[in-house]
Amino acid sequence: MTQTTSGRPARGGRRRDESRDGVILDAALDVLVETGFDGMTVDAVAARARAGKATMYRRWPSKVDLVLDAVARMESGDVDLDHLPDTGSLRGDITGLMRAETLEDGGRRLRVLASLAAMTAREPRLGAAADEVGFGTWERANRVLIERALDRGEFPREHVDVDVLSRLVPQLCAARACVQQQPITREFLLSVLDGVLLPALRGSGPTG
Amino acid sequence: MTQTTSGRPARGGRRRDESRDGVILDAALDVLVETGFDGMTVDAVAARARAGKATMYRRWPSKVDLVLDAVARMESGDVDLDHLPDTGSLRGDITGLMRAETLEDGGRRLRVLASLAAMTAREPRLGAAADEVGFGTWERANRVLIERALDRGEFPREHVDVDVLSRLVPQLCAARACVQQQPITREFLLSVLDGVLLPALRGSGPTG
Repeated sequence: MTQTTSGRPARGGRRRDESRDGVILDAALDVLVETGFDGMTVDAVAARARAGKATMYRRWPSKVDLVLDAVARMESGDVDLDHLPDTGSLRGDITGLMRAETLEDGGRRLRVLASLAAMTAREPRLGAAADEVGFGTWERANRVLIERALDRGEFPREHVDVDVLSRLVPQLCAARACVQQQPITREFLLSVLDGVLLPALRGSGPTG
Repeated sequence: MTQTTSGRPARGGRRRDESRDGVILDAALDVLVETGFDGMTVDAVAARARAGKATMYRRWPSKVDLVLDAVARMESGDVDLDHLPDTGSLRGDITGLMRAETLEDGGRRLRVLASLAAMTAREPRLGAAADEVGFGTWERANRVLIERALDRGEFPREHVDVDVLSRLVPQLCAARACVQQQPITREFLLSVLDGVLLPALRGSGPTG
């Protein structure tokens, strides 16, 4: 179970006991991952977080509201876009993102994503949240690193489809974790990096 | 709703009214996609297929058995590995697979996959079925076409990671359909083909 010490203000919230919010939202993610969205109840989250049910329902009128807040809280958790690795090569930069903690956080994030993904067809607000959890930050980080590599001439820019390539690694991780139920390992990430992303960047350009 | 006229023998089955089996298994897939695995009941499938409940339960003792049979039936439905396109170029071969019917079948297949994916953590037998539905036939078709392209020298074979590249398109389709809930369009497939797969094949090889 992940413990956080953050007391970030809740979305649109007045000041309140923010560390309690953190405990409750972490509990919500844990319950979501354990039981799936269908099986999750606000009562179970209250019990896990030792929070009063009345408080819970006043703050989060529905399970969807609670999940959306919990997801918003984890969104920017594991990749700091302002301090991305800058090693001089795209391979170095991307492997620099693959710290053990990032993989672990990413694993939890993908379990959350899997729990949401099943529900997105029935509850569109969860679809946007799932998209952000699974792809948002990671796609933006990949885009920054790829653009930098193109700027310094590491790969020819012409014909490179930056949109598609920025989503590549997050999408392959999502398919592996959510559909195939396999863990995201360093070995898997390296196979994608060396087998797909870097070759695709080298091999873009006119087909001749 | 997909109608089939196939009277293929059910897995391991004695002879019986096979066209009825087809109707029942198609109904099972429709109910699965509409309600999700959690919401699905054998009774609902019996009602949809106008089949007797006693017959249903004798034949498929549990919902999991019914779903596994239904999935086995659709497995080889949409790509004929013995008659893959052979146009002389990988791009031609793969776009040859993108017939409208294939995209539509593939869309249904991916909706089934999404319904199964949510359950694979709790029911491991569904995991193997999901893997086969989502990746099996498509991965094998991609592998055959990529190997052929390498054999005829369309791309340098050295350093090409055929395992990773054979799974690439199916995995990206699964992420798009199951996690992002976006349809698989010809435009999406072409962006993956021209933006990732073909460049990656051209750009594999020593990094220099």
